[in-house]
Amino acid sequence: MAKGASLSGFPEWLPQERVVEQRVIDTLRHIFELNGFLGIETSAVEKGSSLLKKGETSKEIYLLSRLQDVGNENDTPIEERLGLHFDLTVPLSRYVVENSGTVAFPFKRWQIQKVWRGERPQEGRFREFYQADIDVVGNGELPAHYEVDVPLTMVEALEKLRELGVPQATVHANNRKLSEGFYRGIGLNDIEGVLREIDKLDKIGADEVAKLLISQCGASEKQAHACLELAQLSAENGTQLREKFGTLCKAHGVAEDGDAYALAIEGLETLAMIVDEATKIRPGAVIADLKIARGLDYYTGSVYETFLEGAESLGSICSGGRYDNLASQGKKKYPGVGMSIGLSRLMSYMLHTAHATASRVSPAAVLVAVWDEADRAASNAIARELRNRGIAADVAPTSVKLGKQIKYADKLGIPYVWIPSTTDDNGEKTREEVKNIVTGEQIPACATEWNPADEYTHQTVVIAHNN
Amino acid sequence: MAKGASLSGFPEWLPQERVVEQRVIDTLRHIFELNGFLGIETSAVEKGSSLLKKGETSKEIYLLSRLQDVGNENDTPIEERLGLHFDLTVPLSRYVVENSGTVAFPFKRWQIQKVWRGERPQEGRFREFYQADIDVVGNGELPAHYEVDVPLTMVEALEKLRELGVPQATVHANNRKLSEGFYRGIGLNDIEGVLREIDKLDKIGADEVAKLLISQCGASEKQAHACLELAQLSAENGTQLREKFGTLCKAHGVAEDGDAYALAIEGLETLAMIVDEATKIRPGAVIADLKIARGLDYYTGSVYETFLEGAESLGSICSGGRYDNLASQGKKKYPGVGMSIGLSRLMSYMLHTAHATASRVSPAAVLVAVWDEADRAASNAIARELRNRGIAADVAPTSVKLGKQIKYADKLGIPYVWIPSTTDDNGEKTREEVKNIVTGEQIPACATEWNPADEYTHQTVVIAHNN
Repeated sequence: MAKGASLSGFPEWLPQERVVEQRVIDTLRHIFELNGFLGIETSAVEKGSSLLKKGETSKEIYLLSRLQDVGNENDTPIEERLGLHFDLTVPLSRYVVENSGTVAFPFKRWQIQKVWRGERPQEGRFREFYQADIDVVGNGELPAHYEVDVPLTMVEALEKLRELGVPQATVHANNRKLSEGFYRGIGLNDIEGVLREIDKLDKIGADEVAKLLISQCGASEKQAHACLELAQLSAENGTQLREKFGTLCKAHGVAEDGDAYALAIEGLETLAMIVDEATKIRPGAVIADLKIARGLDYYTGSVYETFLEGAESLGSICSGGRYDNLASQGKKKYPGVGMSIGLSRLMSYMLHTAHATASRVSPAAVLVAVWDEADRAASNAIARELRNRGIAADVAPTSVKLGKQIKYADKLGIPYVWIPSTTDDNGEKTREEVKNIVTGEQIPACATEWNPADEYTHQTVVIAHNN
Repeated sequence: MAKGASLSGFPEWLPQERVVEQRVIDTLRHIFELNGFLGIETSAVEKGSSLLKKGETSKEIYLLSRLQDVGNENDTPIEERLGLHFDLTVPLSRYVVENSGTVAFPFKRWQIQKVWRGERPQEGRFREFYQADIDVVGNGELPAHYEVDVPLTMVEALEKLRELGVPQATVHANNRKLSEGFYRGIGLNDIEGVLREIDKLDKIGADEVAKLLISQCGASEKQAHACLELAQLSAENGTQLREKFGTLCKAHGVAEDGDAYALAIEGLETLAMIVDEATKIRPGAVIADLKIARGLDYYTGSVYETFLEGAESLGSICSGGRYDNLASQGKKKYPGVGMSIGLSRLMSYMLHTAHATASRVSPAAVLVAVWDEADRAASNAIARELRNRGIAADVAPTSVKLGKQIKYADKLGIPYVWIPSTTDDNGEKTREEVKNIVTGEQIPACATEWNPADEYTHQTVVIAHNN
């Protein structure tokens, strides 16, 4: 991270780090568009009333006030004030309703933007970070196959990032209906409460969660342990999932003719479909993991979290789910399913653990040297010729000694220094040459014909193995 | 603009409009990097103390408050609060100071990000918009050639945008030292005041500006008219500029041996150099226009505005200048020169006047039809095969009648519908075919070999001449 970034929680990268972030964004966009997702951007702000819809995170909103209104901010109710968006799902639901007459449904969209959360400073969490989202939103209804299409697109995108240092990703899927049906089947009714506590499993462990289920959600010890048993259930295919769940229901006396069981089976069948369909294409990439709860209360069906092999401590780097009630307009509903990559968190891992960095600091492949300020126009002309041919070129800042100009190129990682023709001490024109300052090789060259070696053509992302 | 965007001043585009914006951003980035500029992003927020440094615009800042601090915001002095950046120059100056030990100088950077201004709602101006900036910042000193390199890079970038509907751009350059020297030479001392009034010339006309110079800046009628005469001066080359300025100085009795004249000549020579150097490369692209004042008080030398042929009423779409005192660290100064494209304003022109739009709404070149939900996996496999070959493909949302699936493709502008093999009424396998729904042509095809026609390969930007 850029040293001395004075505002904690607001990450800034050095230019060579920003190259990595830009490459990640470009790669995600490419895969999303290859899969037919449309790109949009929404404004950074939403009305307070939109932002406050969603329960828990509402505490983390940044509200805006115009400098001229300072002191009178509170004349306006929070619902009417503007705040920065804290995710890209709430803005999407507003955008879809506003443009429902124009966009085609199902509306497949990608969106990569910064979001802001007014976390407490001492927590050292990001207060500004990139999210990379895909969602599919239907008009009235949304076919279940999108619940497997979305995680598969994300897996494909994360797979593409492996060459940039991202480890193998596995999507862990669950279904809210399955959980809710089971909880109701064993006699629990505070579904949101139970999900909220189960969500803490990785953080505080099973014993603490059991205590909370008992103290906060009115569970008996037996019910609490049934919830934990469900959470421990995972499966790599539908058959295994059905078997394990059936056994669990029997063990805890869930009646097979009740509404609760029917709800659970509805969720189970969707989850089984997801895992089985995904297995056909990328075996092991999407697994059923019944501890996935997602703290947010707007999910109504499938929920997803994504973990990286060997970097599980990062937590989920790509999460989401299906939401049937987030967007509506009168009686019309716009159900959706989506996932969101926490890009800044992924970036921290890539930069600081995987040591991804730019192959060179400057995008320029060539620095054109300048013999004398009077000759600058000649050096500019060479640079222009190279640029016309798609070769990024910079021109030396000053006509200091050639050695110093080479040092400037070296500091920027520019591999070639172009040495224009000049007049030597005997009044003879010298040859125009280009020097590879990595290998030391120096050859005669002409700006209309010369090309850099393949590995130096573009600024790329490399993994610095020497760190 | 997306219909019904509920927050005035916060523009949002439809997906097909966003394609244009993305293409503009990609194009600018490409040209900036070709010229050796390094990309950075800074956080959206700065400390109040940084934002308030700059005079006039300070009124337009959005300050942030965490939801939990509402009611107590004013316990924190504005200088300590966070606000959204209103430009990319103030953040750059902070970034450079913070990273001065790491980055190479001169630091050439590009930055394309949104900025926010808390304008009064009724003005109907953008409160959130993209800026696309390039700056070169030196450590201690900065060679004058960057004062022509920067506008030439911007002209090159704007030239590239002409195929997207942007008219020919001309940079109008002036120099603060020239203006200040002249004003002092005719006996005026409120330089900032005079520049501020001259800046209003295009808006309110010469007569009103003269009145203001007299009432606000202590000018006599004669002095006011001298200022206006200077502002009316323009030149296409250095020789012409020197002649016209010399005549003006003589006419108004500016003493040629005074400090004021020396300052004016220093500015004049830089301006002459800029125009002459630019003329060698792109004749007419950069002209001297002495009415250019720039309201912002941090410019100390060259100032630039850029106008589009036939769209002068848009105002300047790319402005900037040289600033020697914006960033400093103890005694060390970081002089810079930069220009900033007001991208959202340019976008409005491109979309609504030039009628630039996406060649199709969806990035997908192909929609793979689905005969039956049971056959979806086969359609998915075809789409995957196409994507593996770099052809963006979507799969029909549902297995409704083929006609309806074609309608969905048509609404998204997807040119091809892929018709998988199926079993006909006689139990025979049908041929796999692809239909160009624009031309109606339908041919047998195989996903491992077929390619779309060149004009349909990628989503591009087109000018809708029928509007």
